Amino acid sequence: MHTYIEDIAAHEGAEVTLKGWLHNRRSSGKIHFLILRDGTGFIQAVMSKAAVGDEMFKAADHLSQETSVIVTGTARADTRAPGGYEIDVKTLEVVGESHDYPITPKEHGVDYLLDRRHLWIRNERQQAILRVRHEIINAVRDFFNTRGFILADTPIFTPAACEGTTTLFPAQYFEEQTAYLTQSGQLYNEANAMALGRVYCFGPTFRAEKSKTRRHLTEFWMVEPEMAYADLNDVMDLAEGLVVSVVERVLDKRRRELGVLERDTSKLEAVKPPFPRMSYDEAVKRLNEQGLSFEWGGDFGGPDETMLAQQFDRPMMVHHFPAAIKAFYMKPDPARPELALGVDVLAPEGYGEIIGGGERLADLDLLVARIREHHLPQEAFEWYVDLRRYGTVPHGGFGMGIERVVAWICGLEHVRETIPYPRMLYRLYP
Amino acid sequence: MHTYIEDIAAHEGAEVTLKGWLHNRRSSGKIHFLILRDGTGFIQAVMSKAAVGDEMFKAADHLSQETSVIVTGTARADTRAPGGYEIDVKTLEVVGESHDYPITPKEHGVDYLLDRRHLWIRNERQQAILRVRHEIINAVRDFFNTRGFILADTPIFTPAACEGTTTLFPAQYFEEQTAYLTQSGQLYNEANAMALGRVYCFGPTFRAEKSKTRRHLTEFWMVEPEMAYADLNDVMDLAEGLVVSVVERVLDKRRRELGVLERDTSKLEAVKPPFPRMSYDEAVKRLNEQGLSFEWGGDFGGPDETMLAQQFDRPMMVHHFPAAIKAFYMKPDPARPELALGVDVLAPEGYGEIIGGGERLADLDLLVARIREHHLPQEAFEWYVDLRRYGTVPHGGFGMGIERVVAWICGLEHVRETIPYPRMLYRLYP
Repeated sequence: MHTYIEDIAAHEGAEVTLKGWLHNRRSSGKIHFLILRDGTGFIQAVMSKAAVGDEMFKAADHLSQETSVIVTGTARADTRAPGGYEIDVKTLEVVGESHDYPITPKEHGVDYLLDRRHLWIRNERQQAILRVRHEIINAVRDFFNTRGFILADTPIFTPAACEGTTTLFPAQYFEEQTAYLTQSGQLYNEANAMALGRVYCFGPTFRAEKSKTRRHLTEFWMVEPEMAYADLNDVMDLAEGLVVSVVERVLDKRRRELGVLERDTSKLEAVKPPFPRMSYDEAVKRLNEQGLSFEWGGDFGGPDETMLAQQFDRPMMVHHFPAAIKAFYMKPDPARPELALGVDVLAPEGYGEIIGGGERLADLDLLVARIREHHLPQEAFEWYVDLRRYGTVPHGGFGMGIERVVAWICGLEHVRETIPYPRMLYRLYP
Repeated sequence: MHTYIEDIAAHEGAEVTLKGWLHNRRSSGKIHFLILRDGTGFIQAVMSKAAVGDEMFKAADHLSQETSVIVTGTARADTRAPGGYEIDVKTLEVVGESHDYPITPKEHGVDYLLDRRHLWIRNERQQAILRVRHEIINAVRDFFNTRGFILADTPIFTPAACEGTTTLFPAQYFEEQTAYLTQSGQLYNEANAMALGRVYCFGPTFRAEKSKTRRHLTEFWMVEPEMAYADLNDVMDLAEGLVVSVVERVLDKRRRELGVLERDTSKLEAVKPPFPRMSYDEAVKRLNEQGLSFEWGGDFGGPDETMLAQQFDRPMMVHHFPAAIKAFYMKPDPARPELALGVDVLAPEGYGEIIGGGERLADLDLLVARIREHHLPQEAFEWYVDLRRYGTVPHGGFGMGIERVVAWICGLEHVRETIPYPRMLYRLYP
């Protein structure tokens, strides 16, 4: 049995064996200071010539970055150490050598690093991001699981488009068929909610986005809850509760990682309910007041979202969008049918939309008319229309893009660092 | 606010509002017995003419299956009721009608039902399966999360094959590229384990299986843990711990659903450690002793797995397979290089392989030789080879197919019922 660095406090004063990699090394005559990492943390191992003898000390002279090593020694509390502990080395064994490790402490360009993503993730900062991602995903799941939602996976292979056909990835499905990779599990979620009441799906989704922006990946993970017997207000309450819960969890469990990322946590601590809720009408007025020439009826671009969101210290919601810019399945406002009962949640600090959702169209005739208006293949949607034929109910939900949430919470410039192996227009390797 | 059927016990004697669907109805003169479902459970609502008046009583005469209804009434404990409670109805409101619901209590063929999967999942038995699936997935995640494993998602779009090229689904990746849908996240897991120590991925995987068997889907979910500094024994211990933990959790939380499925839970209660561990050599001997003509060197088929597993009351492990029938990345046994340090876990009761894994090849030269022998495109695997160039360590892990585990734990004939929307050779709808 060996000890993980994250558990070192339980072994103070005891002899432990660590198995990991050499992250960095400096020497001062008779002492080597070895920074070890094992995936759970980083720790300084102090090797003195007096303790290990000439031979082992000399061997350690040539250890290079990312050499895998097994180190045995005594765990000692040290208030100056970042993790609070150091190791006084007794023995060191090299497991695997490492020559000319391509990612050195110096600066590298992002394409160089992305080509070596399988190694780049060993970097302390990248590890911190991936640990925060892990925590966010688990916080999301716990949120839904403890509120009576059932995870119901929706298919990746779909026979038809959901969100628009220009950004679909086709896949050859055996000899004669074409399947499209899912853009959203929502339509299936609606069927699942009619069976199971409250459901969520959480899986990869695909959009053939040709735009190279800092907010887009071609393959990204999305969580999508859906509730039967719910209206737009229920959807907004759920979205608010989810975001608050996720941020609280990361602040609670991943302070160390946020520190590595130099994240200003006061910005995250401000994420408390209630979130400001603003109609699209009001949002357009605000944009115009701020001097942006934005016309009623258009969809918000990045700069619009940034300007709207930067007026608040927490996420905000915009609701009641023009129906024309929203999906065919959105319920129109009964009082003003030109509006759709949709909502977007915009993250602060310029991160833009992280959630989109709303109340769905529950009326059979209206849905059939919409499918026609949108020139969608009705046959492929027959099953979806069935949900309105057999006991339709008001229902709604939303989708939250995980990579955008990770980028926001970690304070990153670009979503490409939020997932182990980002897929983009020109990026399919490694 | 309305009450969910699963929470009804907290409201005994109180007036509650239930929102759901009419599952079934029978009447006896002056009383309607309405079985309601709301996704969280089923409950009988008793509507007497005396309590609701002639008009409402008469309206309820014509309610058909899957009509969506809101029912208000008093929750009353009744030991004869399956859930322990009934509702004495005060009012009933129809939300959405349902005419000629196509899935009646009579028997339907499986193709008919699969064509209507979006409605079939409303069935009590299908709901029970999906709830057990939900529980299994969450038990898996909790198992790894509480043991220091980090969820690190591996990509769906991959540039090259991992497990063999004949069962790959190609997807068009923008104009000029082809991406293959992942068959396993394992190679990426290995890179992630070198960064994060202990990791798992959990997502959909794809195999273009042309065989129509009761164990295969083209799209299925797999959890794959991977550990740095681990050997075959560690992998076997982890697999055993996971399976035990998942079965315990379902027995603890989903007794009701197992009851709906008429599952013999004594078979599940027998799933305790230690699991029998048997070498491939020994397994071949046993098969021959049982009268099966099985030659050393072959891979087990369904009948072989069934015969091996039926000798035990719990899952069993077979290890040390012939290297020739295992993947290129398996570590050979140093003592007998014709063997690979792989392990399969076979479920009892004829369910066959649910887990496959082992220790990975950590040696640089040997790995490069293997890639050549298998005629794999070395360039596409350069990143994977890098893991042996920069601080290689012994490591291993496995993959567990969720649908097979669900089929086994639920006691199902076929994996097609273990996922909301199964994808098979001729099945892409709904």
